Formats: sequence, C-alpha cells, structure tokens
Amino acid sequence: MLFPIDFKSDTVTKPSEEMRRAMYEAEVGDDVYGEDPTVRRLEEKTAEITGKEEALFVASGTMGNLTSLLTHCGRGDGVILGALSHIYNYEGGGMSALGGLFPLLADDSSGILSPQEITALCLPRNVHHSPAKLLCLENTHNKCGGVAVPVESFENVVKQAREIHLPIHLDGARLFNAALAWGVDIKAFSSLVDSVQICLSKGLGAPIGSMICASKAFIDKARHWRKKLGGGMRQAGIVAAAGLYALEHNIERLADDHKHAQLIASVLEEAGLNVERKGRQTNMVFFSLPEQGPDAHSLIQSCAERGVYFTAMGARRLRLVTHLDVSQEQALRGAEIIVEEVRKI
Amino acid sequence: MLFPIDFKSDTVTKPSEEMRRAMYEAEVGDDVYGEDPTVRRLEEKTAEITGKEEALFVASGTMGNLTSLLTHCGRGDGVILGALSHIYNYEGGGMSALGGLFPLLADDSSGILSPQEITALCLPRNVHHSPAKLLCLENTHNKCGGVAVPVESFENVVKQAREIHLPIHLDGARLFNAALAWGVDIKAFSSLVDSVQICLSKGLGAPIGSMICASKAFIDKARHWRKKLGGGMRQAGIVAAAGLYALEHNIERLADDHKHAQLIASVLEEAGLNVERKGRQTNMVFFSLPEQGPDAHSLIQSCAERGVYFTAMGARRLRLVTHLDVSQEQALRGAEIIVEEVRKI
Amino acid sequence: MLFPIDFKSDTVTKPSEEMRRAMYEAEVGDDVYGEDPTVRRLEEKTAEITGKEEALFVASGTMGNLTSLLTHCGRGDGVILGALSHIYNYEGGGMSALGGLFPLLADDSSGILSPQEITALCLPRNVHHSPAKLLCLENTHNKCGGVAVPVESFENVVKQAREIHLPIHLDGARLFNAALAWGVDIKAFSSLVDSVQICLSKGLGAPIGSMICASKAFIDKARHWRKKLGGGMRQAGIVAAAGLYALEHNIERLADDHKHAQLIASVLEEAGLNVERKGRQTNMVFFSLPEQGPDAHSLIQSCAERGVYFTAMGARRLRLVTHLDVSQEQALRGAEIIVEEVRKI
Amino acid sequence: MLFPIDFKSDTVTKPSEEMRRAMYEAEVGDDVYGEDPTVRRLEEKTAEITGKEEALFVASGTMGNLTSLLTHCGRGDGVILGALSHIYNYEGGGMSALGGLFPLLADDSSGILSPQEITALCLPRNVHHSPAKLLCLENTHNKCGGVAVPVESFENVVKQAREIHLPIHLDGARLFNAALAWGVDIKAFSSLVDSVQICLSKGLGAPIGSMICASKAFIDKARHWRKKLGGGMRQAGIVAAAGLYALEHNIERLADDHKHAQLIASVLEEAGLNVERKGRQTNMVFFSLPEQGPDAHSLIQSCAERGVYFTAMGARRLRLVTHLDVSQEQALRGAEIIVEEVRKI
Repeated sequence: MLFPIDFKSDTVTKPSEEMRRAMYEAEVGDDVYGEDPTVRRLEEKTAEITGKEEALFVASGTMGNLTSLLTHCGRGDGVILGALSHIYNYEGGGMSALGGLFPLLADDSSGILSPQEITALCLPRNVHHSPAKLLCLENTHNKCGGVAVPVESFENVVKQAREIHLPIHLDGARLFNAALAWGVDIKAFSSLVDSVQICLSKGLGAPIGSMICASKAFIDKARHWRKKLGGGMRQAGIVAAAGLYALEHNIERLADDHKHAQLIASVLEEAGLNVERKGRQTNMVFFSLPEQGPDAHSLIQSCAERGVYFTAMGARRLRLVTHLDVSQEQALRGAEIIVEEVRKI
Repeated sequence: MLFPIDFKSDTVTKPSEEMRRAMYEAEVGDDVYGEDPTVRRLEEKTAEITGKEEALFVASGTMGNLTSLLTHCGRGDGVILGALSHIYNYEGGGMSALGGLFPLLADDSSGILSPQEITALCLPRNVHHSPAKLLCLENTHNKCGGVAVPVESFENVVKQAREIHLPIHLDGARLFNAALAWGVDIKAFSSLVDSVQICLSKGLGAPIGSMICASKAFIDKARHWRKKLGGGMRQAGIVAAAGLYALEHNIERLADDHKHAQLIASVLEEAGLNVERKGRQTNMVFFSLPEQGPDAHSLIQSCAERGVYFTAMGARRLRLVTHLDVSQEQALRGAEIIVEEVRKI
Repeated sequence: MLFPIDFKSDTVTKPSEEMRRAMYEAEVGDDVYGEDPTVRRLEEKTAEITGKEEALFVASGTMGNLTSLLTHCGRGDGVILGALSHIYNYEGGGMSALGGLFPLLADDSSGILSPQEITALCLPRNVHHSPAKLLCLENTHNKCGGVAVPVESFENVVKQAREIHLPIHLDGARLFNAALAWGVDIKAFSSLVDSVQICLSKGLGAPIGSMICASKAFIDKARHWRKKLGGGMRQAGIVAAAGLYALEHNIERLADDHKHAQLIASVLEEAGLNVERKGRQTNMVFFSLPEQGPDAHSLIQSCAERGVYFTAMGARRLRLVTHLDVSQEQALRGAEIIVEEVRKI
Repeated sequence: MLFPIDFKSDTVTKPSEEMRRAMYEAEVGDDVYGEDPTVRRLEEKTAEITGKEEALFVASGTMGNLTSLLTHCGRGDGVILGALSHIYNYEGGGMSALGGLFPLLADDSSGILSPQEITALCLPRNVHHSPAKLLCLENTHNKCGGVAVPVESFENVVKQAREIHLPIHLDGARLFNAALAWGVDIKAFSSLVDSVQICLSKGLGAPIGSMICASKAFIDKARHWRKKLGGGMRQAGIVAAAGLYALEHNIERLADDHKHAQLIASVLEEAGLNVERKGRQTNMVFFSLPEQGPDAHSLIQSCAERGVYFTAMGARRLRLVTHLDVSQEQALRGAEIIVEEVRKI
C-alpha cells in the first residue's frame, strides 16, 4: 500500500509483525518491585550500548529528559541549553513548571553550542544569578534540521564543560542517527556525557519508551523522580520487549531512512525548492517555501488531501521525516506529490 | 503450579494468553497526535462506564492522581486529603514536589473523612492560609485495610463538599472492588465527583495504565499536564488493548478475589490471629501479629522461603492482597502456610 | 492612655521614642553589597547570642522560616513538623507552594513532638516516599497556647534526631520567652539545632525583622534564597538599628509580659472561665467559652466596642497576648472587661 | 566631602536628614493586620501617581517583580521577556525556582521587544508548548544602558499585546527616569500596563522598598503571594515614610542625575572612550575599554584605590550610575579620575 505516506515524524511507526510477537511472548513481572526480567534485560543492554553503568526505562523522551534534569539539578539551578533545543521548545516547559529549573539560553543554530558561550553563561557565584549547574546537548539536533553534530565539535564542547566542572546531559533521542551519519559508535558521544536519553519509539520503531543511561548512583536517584512523575509502570516488559527487538533489528536499517531523506532532498532541490543543508543530514528534510506563493499551512492541507503528511516548523518552513514505515518508493512519490502541489498553488 | 503464591499486591498479575492476544492484534497509531484508535476506544469506554464526558489514558495510578491534582489546582493551593490516603503516603510527595500543592490533612482512619472536618479545613480567606481548593477521596481505601466506603457515607461527604463549592477528586484505583462490595454500579461513586482515577493494572489485571475520567474541559487541560510529566506515549494502543480486554472480561471476576480474601481471613482468624474487619472488606486482608512473638519482617522472610509473598504495613501489621493470579487453592494454602510459620516462630 | 488595649499579638507594638532615635541615627549602607554596618552588627550580635557562626537579617519570621527550609531541603524533600506548628498553619503553605517541600505531620499537641513519632516518620528509602530530610521544632509553641517547651523534652527530641542524622530547624520566633520561662539562656535551645529563626518584631518590640542563625556555610546559602525571595534590602540598617536596640533593652522586660499574662489568666479563671494551662505559660493566655453562651466572634465584637482587642483560635477558643504596649493596668482592666462582656451575653 | 564617589548603583544612596526625620516621626501600626496608616498613605499615593486602583508596598524590586509574576501566572505558564531584562538576569531565576514559570526569551537589545517577535512567541495551544501568559517590559532598561524606551515604541508593543490578549507587567524600577527623559508623566507608561513595579530605593533615594501598582483584584491576590514569600512586614510605616518623602521631594531632582550622567559621558568621550548612546540616556553611563589595554576588573580596582566605585557589566564593559549622593563636582571629578586611570594603565 503506497498511501498514506506519513512524513510527520519517525514516532508514527507501527510495530511490525515480529516486534508484536516479541511483545506477545515477553516474560514479565511487576517492574515497580524490580521484578520484570524483560525490562531488566533492556536496561542492561542499553547501558552496555551507551557505555554506562546502568539504564532506566521511561515512558517517553520527554520523561527521560525531565527525569534526568530533575536528577542532575536542584530547585532553582540554571540549565544551559540551546535556544532551539527540543527540551526548551517542545517539552511543555516542564523543567521550570515541575522542577523549578531556570533555562540559560545559548545559540545552537549550528546544532551545537560554542564553548565560549558556555563559559560566559557560567557567571561567578552571586546572589543575583541562577547558577549554571548543567549543560544540555542534543544530537541529532531536531529543530536545526536533524543535523548530526560532528564528533569533534561535540568533543570540544564537552572538553570545555569538563574544565569548568559542568555536568552534561545529552538529549540523544536520535543518537543512533547521529552515530550513523558520522560512521561512529554511539559511545563516541554517549561515553563523554554524564547522562544520555535515547528514544526507542523514534527511528528504532518501538511503540513506547525511552532509556536514561548513566552511572549507578544517578539511575538510583532517577528511579525516585520517575516514580514521583508517575512513570513507574507494572508489567512494562510487554513494551520493553519491543525496545529490545528494536535494538537488535532496527539500528542498521536507519541507513535506509537517511538514503530516503537524501532522495527526497534531491527531488525537492531539483524542483527549485530551498532545502536546508546545514551539515551532516540524517532522516529529516527541512525546506522553505518562497515568500510569494502558498504558505506551509496551505501546502500541508493540499498534500494531506493526497495522502501525504508532514509538519510546519514555521510559517514557510516544513519538515519531512523518514522512518521504517516509509519505503524508497513512498519517499520518492511523496516528494513528487509535494513538488506537484507547490507548483499547483 | 501452586507456587509462588504472591499476595504482595494486585499489581503483580501477568497478562493472560487472551489479553496478550488482544495486545498483539491491537490497531495502533501515534497517540501524541491523537491517532491511536485503541486508546480512543478505551477512553470512550471508561468515560461511559464512569459516567463522565471524557477520559485520558495515563501510565500509572500515580500519574493519574498527580495529573488530576495539577489540573484541579494552581501553585500553592491546599488539598484536603486523608492522613492515611495513598496520595499522601505512597506517591513520593509529587503533589508538593512537582506541583507546589499543600496537603491539608484530615482523619480518614474510618476510610472516609468527616463532613465536619472538611468544613473546618476550609478556613476563611486570609493571607496566612493556603486555601482549600480540592477534596481527595479514596475508595476502596488501601491503607485502612482495603475497606469499601459505603455509598451513604460517600454521599454525605460529597454533599458537604458541594455546599462549600469544593471540587472533588476520587482516587478510585480499586473503585470496581468498592462497587462490587456494595453491589452498586461504580457510577454510584464516580458520577458524584469531578474527576476519578481508576487503575487497569490492579484487580483488572492489565499490565500498564490508569484512566482519568472527568469533563471534556478537564481532560483537555489534563492532557497538557500529562505531556509535561512525560506521559505522552506513542503507539499506546498496544497497552490500551489490554485495558479494554480487562474492562470486558475481568470486572465480574473480582468477586472471586473478595471470596478468596474472606477465605484467607477465616483461616487466619481461626488460628487466633487478629484480622482487621473495619467495614466492608474487599480483596485485602490486614492482620496483626501479637506483641510477643515474631515481627512482620521475620514472618515475611520465613514465608518467602516457602514461596508465599506479602508485605508489611507496620512493625507487626501485614497485608495480603488477592487477585486473578491467586486461585482459591492458592489462597487457602497460602493462608495455611502463614499460620504454620506464625506458630513455628 | 488606657485604651485601646491590644491583646491581638505581640507584633502590634510600636517603636518607643528611644528605638526611633536609634533608627534615626543609624549608620547605613547598601546591604545587598554587604555594606551596611548596622545590619552587620545586628547579625554578629544575634549569632553570638544564639551561639552560631553567623546570622542573616530577614524581613519577617515567615521569611526566616521559609529561607531556612529552602536552604536545608531540596525539591520534594519531606519536612517533619507539628500539625499545630506555625509553619504548617500560618505561613500560607509557602514551603510547598514555593519550595516543593512535603509536610510530614506529627502530633505536637503537647508543644513538642515525640522521639518515637519522629523515628516512625523516617521511613526506609523507597520510591513511594518523600524522604524526611528536616525536623522543625517551635518554642514557644504558639498554637499550643504559647507554652515553653521544657529543656529536657527539647533535648530528648534533639538527641533522637541526631541519632538518625536528621537536621533540625527551630522556629524560635519567641525563643526569648521560652528561655525566660525556664530560666535558661536561649543557647540551651538554639545551640542544639542547626538553624534557628528568632523574631525581633514580636515581644522584643522592633518594627520589622527576624534573624536566621546558623553555620557560616548555611547562612551563605540562605543569602541566595533570601535574594530570590526578594528579601534583599538596601539601607536595611535603619530597621536593623531597632533590632539592635531591642536586643539591648527589651529582653529582660519580657518578664513583665509573662506576669501580665498570669494576671489575666487569674482574673479569667476566678470568673470561672476555662483557661488553658498546658505547661509553662509565657506571654499568651488561651481560654475557651462554654458551649452555651456567646461564641468567640461575638465576644471579640463586644469587647472591641470597648477598646479591647484579641483573636479567635477556634469557634470558642480565644487568644490574648501581652507585650510591651500592654501595662499591668491595661492587662488587669482588659481582663475585667472581657469577664464583664462574657457575663453580659 | 568629595570621596568616596560611588557610581555602583543608585541603590547606594543614604537617607537624608529630612528623610530620616520623616521616618522618626512616622505614624505606624501592624501592616499585616492592615493597620499601618503610613503604609496605606504610601499605597494610595503611588496608586494615584501610576493611575492604578491600588498599590502594595514590598521589600524590594525583586519582590515586586516576583510577586507580580506569581499573581499574573500559574504554574508552568510562559512569560515573554527580554534576554537582557533585569528579571531574567538579576533576580536569581526566582520566577522559575519559586514560581515554576517558563521564560520565553525575546530580543530586547534595543531596549524594547518587537511586536512581531511577541506575536511569534504566542504559539498555538499545543501540549508541546508552555503557553505565553504574560509580557514583561522594562523601562528604563538597565542592561541596555539605562535607555528610556520611547513612548511610541512602548505603545506599539502594548497595542500588539492587547490585540492578542496578553497581559503586561512593567518592571518600572526606574520609571521616573524614563518619564523624565521623555518629558512625560509616568502614566504615559504605567497606565498602559496591567501591573507596574516602581522602586523607591533607587533614584528616589529611600532606603527600602518598592511598590506594585495594579487593579484592586490584582493587589488583593498579590497580598497573598507577598505573605507567602515572607514579605508581610509589621510596622512598615517606618520605611514607608521614607518612600512618601521620596515621592514628595526627590522626583524632580532626577534631572540632576541625568545631567551628571551627561557630564560624565562627555568627559569620557572627550578622552576617547567608547560611550554607549543607544537612545535617550538617563542616569547611567555605559562605556567600553579598548581591546588592548586594561580590562574592566583592573580599572575598577585602580579607581577604587582612589575612592571611585563602579561595576563591570562584561569583561570590558563598565557601568556608572548617578544618584542623589553624587554631586556635579563628584561626577566631574569621578570621570576625570577614571580617564586618568585608563590612561595610566
């Protein structure tokens, strides 16, 4: 079936037959009592993959990031994060609303913060300031176009943070895409930070869940915050089984998503559309509509009528995401339909 | 298989073959975009069952209660709740930690608060006080022994709260047990309150999830708080399918759990143990050990060695919970083993 | 001038001619820059009096308690405090509203908590609980009738808290009254706790201000919380001068207030009124009206018409407070008028 | 006495003989009971001056802003404010730490936000976003160089906010300076917003205090938040008297401060220093040191040794503030000393 072609997000994937079977057969227990063997296996496996002591299964990327921030920081602490970061823009302001944390915004329009600005945001201790106690990074960087931050840039920032004793949390919702884009193991990023959140429900295709990976002491404390948030789940092994399946079967195939995104980008560019190429791209294509002509909203509507779905990231800026429920044929056909609709209007 | 016999909680149940099949076959979508048909069906069904306009699927009872409290109350509002309530005792203090809510404690040792005390806690508006803005009730009442609050007592309290314009949230984690105990529809309780939380993962046997049921406006606002907490899940239909199955197949059979609890209570009483009978009992048996003799901890250990599990609610107070993974034979044998171990020591 | 006779609170005192002169002549600077010599002198003097390393001037007793709690505890920490304590009842719930702290209530109807209950509230570390991280005591205990907690009871509680490594904050708003009642130096109480708040604007008669006294490290951290709360004041030396004057001139004369309270209590008792005598009384008289007859509200109104003011602490419970603006003659006449009005109705 | 010459801030002023006398003679009462006549007079007077229904006396500008934000916004609400604003930079992050508010940052490098950006920050209602519920403006704008925002720019922003139903709070710590700079009544600004905070302890020269001016309903609610913060003060009339005196005697003389700042600016410019002239300047002079040569820190130290004090606003950016304790002679001499020291190094 060619349609619908859903480029809205890599979160829309539906579990495959095999993944469903893994859930069906999952051995479970009550995870609030620490008795779910599948959850434990998933936690051990992701800890190993990311090079951390322990891991914790949570209900979503937002919960993974919030739990991590609550664990790192006390009431009123300052958190250095990008003005375009997912945590600042798309997590409902939970860090301040629920945690009393204060965002110290830095320029991340390149995908990564500058070591100089990080240092500048760490002001001398003074009653007038909220002290910087954490640095948040994001890789791949969603709002910057899904760019994969280069290992060297990442290392430079980490080095600077280490020098000023600033702990680091990595929003690695799509860290596997970043690693793939640079041909490195995800440890090239995850091993450098104090805590990392990775999503099972994005490119990896699991229906539910994210992992926090960090030290044993950190995870122990995070478990308490997860419970307070209401994230303690009972026979969570059912969904953890899908996560395990995803880690075993769906990492390498992310390369297809990247290829499909390239294909889409080419089609759009050939048609004269302005496609963003800020750096190493992954499974996202961002493009802009010319000032004259239809806006994002109109294009989304007309494409939706033809069974092609995607989202606006501004008045004339659009985002397409590839994932395991988008085949090469769908990527191509979807891009063609977008071009047709742009021209029509 | 007779062992293990797990009386720890009705949360420990494992999904049956049929429930697993329901999950395996579940039609799903991305629920953050409102596109999961199974979640929608579950929400419609529970709204109907509880007599509310809408419902919201959440990851746990704790998340259901916290989301409801955040939705009802603003920063600094006072919440009247029982000193023995689950929200006050077992939810990590999240209402204050994350929501800035202030607990106004009332005596609920009978299972329900007194209308007089509720009124007394609603002090005149004054800068010195945190104003009471919500009343929380719990039915069945866990820490009071799993007692089912009588309809009339419940109605009296509700009537008083209505007179002073105090909204009401009901922690109905085990509301089906309460309704069964009194032979009424759960609407006899749920229709009287503004919001109710019911658990799918306790006596009903689903692996994950709770429902918040309330007005359309309330649920719309609650959806925002759920997202901030990190409770927005993607293809949640997988687990929602188990919830639907549970509502269709596992409500009536709660009567077995109540019978098994009675059976256990009889065995313990005949052996001379002090079993609590505070009111209409449900699927829990609370009993105390005599001052001379072993304490709760020793008994739990010696029974665990024989494959019988349960929990301490105090130095000499113990709790046994029956559920769909405890057969009549197991209830009986489990009770006998407890008696044997009490005598041994 | 005999009237008005204001028994509402010892906070209503107006600065004397000499105290006003001290303010008029105060040497000042900008205390936010640490440049106010009078504030510094006051902080040094109170640190010395309480046996602490340092002290901090704050705008009120509520700010002193809140700042102390924010300094001791992180987001979500549990605070053990009396169900009748001022912090729980009369500080607007700020500890939860602004600090995300969770009250763990204990019985303080005797004026002091029991060591057993404190221990019982320190539950084992578990994701379900908000961990107890602070114990709050109050001396004299306002809502218990202004009783002065005996040194021995106080020591017993402190000893127990020390054994379980629980830090202690003392709400010593009226600690000088307590020390006077038992004939001891206030260090008998203040030296035993980690932080103490004492009010300058109650019995001591200064117009504004309280002091937090604690270790150097604690005060340094408290200074940051004070600023966040908006409690950083500029030429605060003006009001600090009144505090210094009060410490130098108004401590010993608290004995008069106690005598006047005794006088009032005798007059009321002789008239058959039920005066509370729970322990060592100080500058407060609590009495109750018989069930038949007028309630607190009526009595307050009829006495107010005759220029005698006091407050209700319940439907039939009343509080009278003596202070430096109540002479012996006023105490006597005020009590007589109350008796006359009780009989009239 | 010529020295010290203190340009650190207009907060360092010491009360004059007449202002001290006003405090000495102030009629007072317990303001927590609403019984302080001087506080009431001050509140009435500032309400009238700002064109508002009511006013509230608070301990500081930070408390005035925080109380206003807590009154406008609930837990988790988004607050649009300038990236250079005082609230974001110098109030300890209290809005998030204590209030759970989420800063939505806009560019205010010109002193005022753009109507377009304000609109852009008001995103459609969506669970991913913290909804914008308040706009904060600042006039004069401290970190932008003490520039007075023009009436027309101010009106344009207000008009836009009104169209999208966004309430407005004005941090008018130095609003009298802004009005003076443009030759208008402060109502030209204050009457356009929902709440305004003005400081008595800056250019006006009072030792302590700020005012919140707004509608009756707003002030009533703000009074509760002030109490929770610990800002309820007793015989506050003492300091309110200085505020009243300041309003009666020290507004027109702000013109001298502006003239003195101009004088300083001229001296520095003539000496070749880079003085900021972003718009209509008031009582502040911002200047930068050339890249080669001493940095801010060295200059501050060498001038301090000669009795001239000021502050750094960056590695090479410096701020001088004039006020009623800086005479024309001191302004001139201070500027000359700075020039001498710059050249020396």
